[in-house]
Order: sequence, then structure tokens, then C-alpha cells
Amino acid sequence: MPCFKLRISYDGSRYRGWQRLGDRGDTVQGKLEALLSRSLGEAIEVSGSGRTDAGVHAHCQTCSFRCSADVDAVEIERLLRRYLPEDIGLLSVEEAPPRFHARLSCTGKRYRYHIWNSYEPNVFLRKYSCTVEAELDTRAMEEAAAQLIGKHDFSAFCSAKKHKHSPVRQLRSIKIWREGPMLITELYGDGFLYNMVRIIMGTLIEVGLGQRSPESVSEALHSRDRQQAGPTAPGMGLFLWDQEYDS
Amino acid sequence: MPCFKLRISYDGSRYRGWQRLGDRGDTVQGKLEALLSRSLGEAIEVSGSGRTDAGVHAHCQTCSFRCSADVDAVEIERLLRRYLPEDIGLLSVEEAPPRFHARLSCTGKRYRYHIWNSYEPNVFLRKYSCTVEAELDTRAMEEAAAQLIGKHDFSAFCSAKKHKHSPVRQLRSIKIWREGPMLITELYGDGFLYNMVRIIMGTLIEVGLGQRSPESVSEALHSRDRQQAGPTAPGMGLFLWDQEYDS
Repeated sequence: MPCFKLRISYDGSRYRGWQRLGDRGDTVQGKLEALLSRSLGEAIEVSGSGRTDAGVHAHCQTCSFRCSADVDAVEIERLLRRYLPEDIGLLSVEEAPPRFHARLSCTGKRYRYHIWNSYEPNVFLRKYSCTVEAELDTRAMEEAAAQLIGKHDFSAFCSAKKHKHSPVRQLRSIKIWREGPMLITELYGDGFLYNMVRIIMGTLIEVGLGQRSPESVSEALHSRDRQQAGPTAPGMGLFLWDQEYDS
Repeated sequence: MPCFKLRISYDGSRYRGWQRLGDRGDTVQGKLEALLSRSLGEAIEVSGSGRTDAGVHAHCQTCSFRCSADVDAVEIERLLRRYLPEDIGLLSVEEAPPRFHARLSCTGKRYRYHIWNSYEPNVFLRKYSCTVEAELDTRAMEEAAAQLIGKHDFSAFCSAKKHKHSPVRQLRSIKIWREGPMLITELYGDGFLYNMVRIIMGTLIEVGLGQRSPESVSEALHSRDRQQAGPTAPGMGLFLWDQEYDS
């Protein structure tokens, strides 16, 4: 049973997110599985490094699957490049060690959040950023972000009410920089809870607008109460950026 | 009769181009005129600095119109920001001198052409660039481009069979540079014939692929024969970039 590691990017605009929902074709996992299953003549299950919500994009999403067909990476690449829709792009295919699993083997993940911070609209980035017209105070946002770094119970920054698993995650860094009017925030950690990046961003935007103090973010974290954090920022600004695996 | 100067940007993907076609709403000029006429209660004619074809974008298109209604720039801005569709963005509105005309007053224009020059697809830029997988030889393209600079009869680089007006234009500069895998070409001149930028780009791409020599571009120019130039490059890679006006 060969095991393959895929790296893909996708424009999440017209998908209901990564995760397959029954037989519906409007998820990225569903599209990939349908295409691979049809082409290889067997039921293929594709694992992703993590889920993305409706409208969320992937600059790079690592996936893995096993099959019993006698195919190699070149053939997989050829058929995916030929049949994937134009909003899912294949970056690479390689044969992986038999125990490789895109989610379970992942040792680090990066997300980026794009805020178009200008009164002048950008029509070309409208589906790939969240617009905030008023100028954001990035110093205050950085100060607030610093309080989230480390190993914490991030329950306050999670949409799921009950946790089947531990709500503790290690957030290794948050970097914030401007490229022209675009304000980019990169979050790097060992894993993220449901909606965690978007709730952190909704909270940082409130700080950047002066609607809450940087210190209040630390208070929200320690409260473990979702009500203390800010709103969930729009999905269209979020990119699953890349993943790390031990070689 | 106040005269207004607008600067807009648009994502040309879903439009049949700039120029109004009867009562159809699927042109940028048609959209603007319908919105302004309805809001101001009189028939408004909007002039653009130039036409763009189906699928061609505008980073900045300057437009002008006159009206008899007693409105100021602030009101025009308010109603355009409120009612323009999300793929047409308002950059600025100002009151202009009574004789200002976006096309007739224009003294210089820039276009940019975006080529995604990589085997790895970019799903986010797929509607805003033309993909060429094989590596382009930019030195050869620059050498070819240099032969087009100056005041010439550009009939060989024009789709219109017959010229109502002179086919002579002054091309002031062509700059070519890379930003990562994106190859950007900027063309600056006093005006451009129908499809001129796209035919120049189709020809330069052939040079970059080694399919024709840089010298053949000079020969094509002097032949004034459309058959001697390359194909018309896809519209989706083209951006009307900006315009110059004497102050």
C-alpha cells in the first residue's frame, strides 16, 4: 500500500471548507477524494493537516492518502494536475513513508491573516482579506499578541463549547507586519483549536481599533471564557500557510 | 454643470469590458452610468481614459462626467461607495475644471501585464495573470521590447483591420521585472491602439520562450503587417495601471 504526501493550495471562496460533508462535492476534501477514488478505482480517504472553515484559503495544505493501486507519484501528479478544478492547485506529490499521516505526523503549523487596512478598497484582494478602514495600532496589537505566546488553555479562543480533547496548545510566535496597506499576522504553533486563529484575530482587531486594552487579552485568556474574547474574524482573511514535519 | 473626475479600479473578470453595449449591464461603463443616472435623476454619460476588453482589469481607470444636478464630490463619493458592486472600487472623486475629459485630456497611460511564470500554479492570481510554465528569458524579452520604443506606426500590433485614425503612437518605455515567480511588464506611452498591449505581450512571450528572435520584433514592427507579430495574449493578465493629466 503506497502512501502519498500531497501539498495543495486552494482558494476557499466557493467551498464549505476542507472537511467532507456526506456526498456533497463542495468541500476540498470531498473534491480530492472523489477525483482520486474515480481515477484509481478504489475508495480513497484523504487526510489533511487540519480543517479549514468555509471561505478560508490554503497557501499550502499538506494531505496524505494510501491506495492499493500500483501507481507512482508521477502518475498521481499527472492526473491531479489534469483534473483538479482551477481553484485547487497542486504544489507537489511525493511517495511518503508508510506511517506518514498529514495530521498525526504534523509538528508545527502556520496561519496568516490578511487585513486590508485602508479606506481605498482593493477589488483584487476582496476575497483574500478582511477590510478594516480605520488605521490599526499595530504596536498595541503586538503588545496584546505577546500575552498569548506560550503553552496555555485557549478555551476562551475556541468556538467549541465542550472539549473532547485538551484545550491546551502551544503558540510559539505571532508576527505582525505591513506590506503597503496590507497588515499581515502570522501565527505559528503546534496546533490550533476550532476557530482559534479567527477569534485571536477578532480580538487583536479590537485592540488595534482601541476598543479594548492589550492587557484585557491576557485577562480573557486566563478566564477561559469565550465571552471575554473578541468576535470571530471573517474566514476570507485567513490562510492556512504551511506545516512542519520531522524528516 | 459641474464636472467630476473619478478614479476607479475594477476586477474585469465578469465584465464584457469597459464600453457600454446597449442596455446590457455587464460592462463597467454601463454599470457606472446606470447607477449615476438613477441616483442623480438624469441621463449621465461617463467617459473613461480608454477602453478595456473583456476580462481586462483596471488598477486605476480615470473617468469623467458632467451633470446638471446640484451635487458635490462628497455626495458622489458617498453614493458610489454605497452602491458600486464589490468588483468595482472607488479610489477618489473630485470636482474637475469644466473642460476636463478623461480621454481627451489624458497625456500618458501605463499598462501592466502579469505573467505567472512557474510550473506551480497560483490559485489566488489565476484570474489576474497569464500562466507560462516554461521559464521566460527576460533578457531576450527586454532586447525585443527596446526595439518598440519610440514613435512608430504600430499597425502590426493592432487588431483593427482599418484605421479611422492614425496608427502612429509614441511608446515611451517598457520595463520588465520579476517579483518572485511573477513577471511584470509595464508599458508607458501617449496612447495605445486596439489590442496593442496584448499583441506586444504575445510577441514578447514568444521571444521569451525562444520561439522567435528579438530582431524579428523590429521586422514585424516595420512590416506594419499584423501577421508578422505574435498572438494576442490573454486579457486576464492585463491591467490598465494609471494615467497622466496636465495639472
